[in-house]
Amino acid sequence: GAVMALVATSKCLFSGSRDGTIRYWDLEGGAFLCRKAMRQGSEVLALSLSDHALFSGGEDRFVVVWCRNTLVPLYRFESSASQSLAFSSVTQVLFSGGIDDTSVSAWCTRELCQGEGFMSRSDHNDANSKEWSLEGHLRRLIRLQTVTGDRSNRDDCWECAKYLSSLLEDMGATTSLIDSTMSEGRINPLLLAKFAAPYPGAPAVVFYGHYDVQPASGHWESDPWKLTAIDGYYYARGATDNKGPILAFVAAVRDFLAETQGKLPFSINLCLEGQGESFNIGFRDSILANLQWFANTKILLTSNSYWIHDERPCLTYGMRGSMDFTITVSRPGENLHSGVDGGACAEPMDDLIAILSEMKDHRGYCRIPHFYDGVRSLTDEEARYFDEVEKDTRARVMEDDRGTKLYLRSDLEKRWCSPSLSITSLSSSNTNQAYSVIPKCVSAKISARFVPDQHPEELQGRIRQYLEYEFDKLSSSNRLEVHFEKIGDYWLSNTTVQSFEIAARAIEKNWGCPPLLVREGGTMPVTSFLMKTLNCEVVQIPLGQCSDNAHLPNERIRVLNLDRGRNVLKDFLLGLRSILHNGDVVNQELT
Amino acid sequence: GAVMALVATSKCLFSGSRDGTIRYWDLEGGAFLCRKAMRQGSEVLALSLSDHALFSGGEDRFVVVWCRNTLVPLYRFESSASQSLAFSSVTQVLFSGGIDDTSVSAWCTRELCQGEGFMSRSDHNDANSKEWSLEGHLRRLIRLQTVTGDRSNRDDCWECAKYLSSLLEDMGATTSLIDSTMSEGRINPLLLAKFAAPYPGAPAVVFYGHYDVQPASGHWESDPWKLTAIDGYYYARGATDNKGPILAFVAAVRDFLAETQGKLPFSINLCLEGQGESFNIGFRDSILANLQWFANTKILLTSNSYWIHDERPCLTYGMRGSMDFTITVSRPGENLHSGVDGGACAEPMDDLIAILSEMKDHRGYCRIPHFYDGVRSLTDEEARYFDEVEKDTRARVMEDDRGTKLYLRSDLEKRWCSPSLSITSLSSSNTNQAYSVIPKCVSAKISARFVPDQHPEELQGRIRQYLEYEFDKLSSSNRLEVHFEKIGDYWLSNTTVQSFEIAARAIEKNWGCPPLLVREGGTMPVTSFLMKTLNCEVVQIPLGQCSDNAHLPNERIRVLNLDRGRNVLKDFLLGLRSILHNGDVVNQELT
Repeated sequence: GAVMALVATSKCLFSGSRDGTIRYWDLEGGAFLCRKAMRQGSEVLALSLSDHALFSGGEDRFVVVWCRNTLVPLYRFESSASQSLAFSSVTQVLFSGGIDDTSVSAWCTRELCQGEGFMSRSDHNDANSKEWSLEGHLRRLIRLQTVTGDRSNRDDCWECAKYLSSLLEDMGATTSLIDSTMSEGRINPLLLAKFAAPYPGAPAVVFYGHYDVQPASGHWESDPWKLTAIDGYYYARGATDNKGPILAFVAAVRDFLAETQGKLPFSINLCLEGQGESFNIGFRDSILANLQWFANTKILLTSNSYWIHDERPCLTYGMRGSMDFTITVSRPGENLHSGVDGGACAEPMDDLIAILSEMKDHRGYCRIPHFYDGVRSLTDEEARYFDEVEKDTRARVMEDDRGTKLYLRSDLEKRWCSPSLSITSLSSSNTNQAYSVIPKCVSAKISARFVPDQHPEELQGRIRQYLEYEFDKLSSSNRLEVHFEKIGDYWLSNTTVQSFEIAARAIEKNWGCPPLLVREGGTMPVTSFLMKTLNCEVVQIPLGQCSDNAHLPNERIRVLNLDRGRNVLKDFLLGLRSILHNGDVVNQELT
Repeated sequence: GAVMALVATSKCLFSGSRDGTIRYWDLEGGAFLCRKAMRQGSEVLALSLSDHALFSGGEDRFVVVWCRNTLVPLYRFESSASQSLAFSSVTQVLFSGGIDDTSVSAWCTRELCQGEGFMSRSDHNDANSKEWSLEGHLRRLIRLQTVTGDRSNRDDCWECAKYLSSLLEDMGATTSLIDSTMSEGRINPLLLAKFAAPYPGAPAVVFYGHYDVQPASGHWESDPWKLTAIDGYYYARGATDNKGPILAFVAAVRDFLAETQGKLPFSINLCLEGQGESFNIGFRDSILANLQWFANTKILLTSNSYWIHDERPCLTYGMRGSMDFTITVSRPGENLHSGVDGGACAEPMDDLIAILSEMKDHRGYCRIPHFYDGVRSLTDEEARYFDEVEKDTRARVMEDDRGTKLYLRSDLEKRWCSPSLSITSLSSSNTNQAYSVIPKCVSAKISARFVPDQHPEELQGRIRQYLEYEFDKLSSSNRLEVHFEKIGDYWLSNTTVQSFEIAARAIEKNWGCPPLLVREGGTMPVTSFLMKTLNCEVVQIPLGQCSDNAHLPNERIRVLNLDRGRNVLKDFLLGLRSILHNGDVVNQELT
């Protein structure tokens, strides 16, 4: 095949060709003999040499590291691009670059063999200038410890909202920060930013994201408040949930503005929340008070979920609803002592255990009457999506040993299309968990999920009624309380609407395969609320992988996913031009 | 009756007499007219005047405060002694003193009407000198934060042991500090102190106490690490558990040495532990390594329990045993998500709830087969004790409205003579108790109590077997673990042995009524261990009241109880001379 790359020393030459072959040529003594041929796996685009190794970059974005003496492959790693490679012998750093983007990545070669080594990326255009860089902005956002619910982080939250605000203003948006005080106190501001199309009544796309993050508890391998690049991943709290995807969308808008040369066919609005990890406190009120700002919203776009495994992109079209509740049993007075009083008092714990044991059977089936009523049947179309997921994950499981989960269709139906009930924690007034204390008060926290077309209020009534009935049967002198938290509703999109197909095409174009169409068992109450309130379609494009560790220590996002996600989002916006223009909106689902 | 007290101003005179009458005499204009007579309630021993009030001290140790204008009683409070009273008008402080002890108490009169006012006591002999004072030593011991299990308090624990050690050496004891390192790390030293009788083979009395304390968590009205005197009580962590009683015994030994003029009829040994609140870690090993030191022990004396209410002294003759265990159910991998996985996984919580619900019925009855086997029947003698407790508490309940509990005999049998089982806490790997997390691991802590003549090891086997059987029935893919902690055995004394009768007489002499003979539902593993290991009799004389708040915020001990307790312990030692002397020991129980 065509020779795409060459690298030489005084004694030898390596060549890489389009057919995926690397050849080693001996130049010693004026000869020109091919001593050996190696297989790269895909088109060879770049070659570079260090004292001990040969690096080859393939069209599949993998860089292979070969031993210079034995010419056997030592290891390989995935780069965001490997169309050019250069090795710096002084610092032992390998640089890689590509055509798709304009950045250069730096890899510490000493650590590559441990599966690590990714150091940083910089925009090729201007490593040292002030030019716009997704990584640069992400690095600065990560530094701000925007943990909601923690008052000491309020300044960081404000700074984050202001940073995003000025970033968007610099791109031409008009912005406003909505500052509210709720019964819980002053909350973090909601940022609204609008890139207005230059004609009245223009349709609008709203992107929803949240700049607040979960606390960084647990054991982290790197500083959670510093963007750390290791082995092709950015590690940091908020990297994937949700700062990374927010900035990918901002970058996509930037690219879109450049391609459309500022002539916006529709308005692009960003709605970036600061209470996304704290029950969206105040969000509904703020939206309802600013409905005018959301006029003509046709599509709600979010990127706040994940692929179902690490390899194949997904497109999410539905989520379950959730209702949380607490069951508390208490007796008057103080805690008792298991020695002094054990055997002679009505222990609230016994009552709680008794009613919890009546709530589910030992197979996990919920015994509350009518709990499973009202579930919408799976369509044939959906059944095909589920079969595809099963087929895909079955193939992955055969292929790799990195713990990819097999999702059987029956399993998916349980996770995505059936109500469920989980006892998630128990607590008591025996706060030190001493063996000697009989708690006067015990509580169980329960998470229930429900699905289309169930009615959450009806379900709450049934749950309360059943628990009270079971408690009455105990004839206990203790007191029962059942307290329901706010309901987060389900949502389910019609997958045949054009916006959904445009998203699927954008994904296929950038990833080379159609996305798996998936639902989720989890809940994003904001989505169903905005969908209903704004009467719009929902497109949820997950950027990150299953192993991104959202909410967990060592949260991360793959650099490749961030880059391609940016392009997916740009292509999605470009695609929307065919349905959203000049006020002439095609809206199959809602008309 | 005989006039015991007089107090006069230029215009009037008050007299108090043995018949309990206080008379008000008008001296105005040279007259000498008895204008009014008031009833004190018991022999009037002292009178004092402030600008607004008359204070009268009675033989019952109550001080009555009268309005000087109306001559009606305003309120009364209990002092440790009220044989003399003096009011200081500058500071508005009332001082009270007595014959029985050598101390003066100071009362802030402004606060007396709120039921408070006790300020401090000082030894009359030498308020400013270095003379021995129980309160002074207690004040210094309290300052040391001897919380076990907290490494940062290790220095305080050592200082406390050394302080007690030198206190006892000054009184003539030989002492040693046993320093051990266990698997849990270096533990607090065990203090052994011996007042040796001057002949070989002398019988010995061992006093067991612990100088370590519970943490001072919760809401305290005063600094828990500063002895604070309010309304006749000393408040501080450790005041009643167990520093106060330890020092009362030390004071009793001091009094005993003075009365016997140093000619000890038997040896007195103190065994003061620094791990009494931390499962007695290392205690057994240290005792077994020093058995020679305990040679000829005939009687083990402890004062580490409480009266069953606040009014009548008690003598404890038995305690239940205890076994703690943890049931854990877990699944491999990480915590799951109630949205992503709810309904499609075997939740360890469901299994745990299922087996816990099979362990007890809704009346609190334990379903484990043979759990109630082997219980020794109540003797007729004991039945009479229990009847007496019921009668006594019934009278108290009628008499006061301060929440004295009524103990029915059937209730006492459940608390003191029946095994019991309490689920005291549940914890899980969902450490933040988030609604969205399905814990991969859940545990229940259970406290079981057992009684004579049950076999704890047999009981453990039955518990484990039953739980495993119930878990097997679930056919769960999860894993069950049952982990038993150390057993603390029961103990039960023969109440007809002479040492027990001597203790009862000492209590009756000092409190004016015979003690209630009680068992306890709680466990003191040290007692049964020492009783069996040293083959000795046990006498447990509780000094404190039911409302002392041991282990709780605002722990306290009544000054009166500390003072009289000291005398009870001294009289007990004096009484023992009749059975322990010259090696000729009467030991009814064990021979």
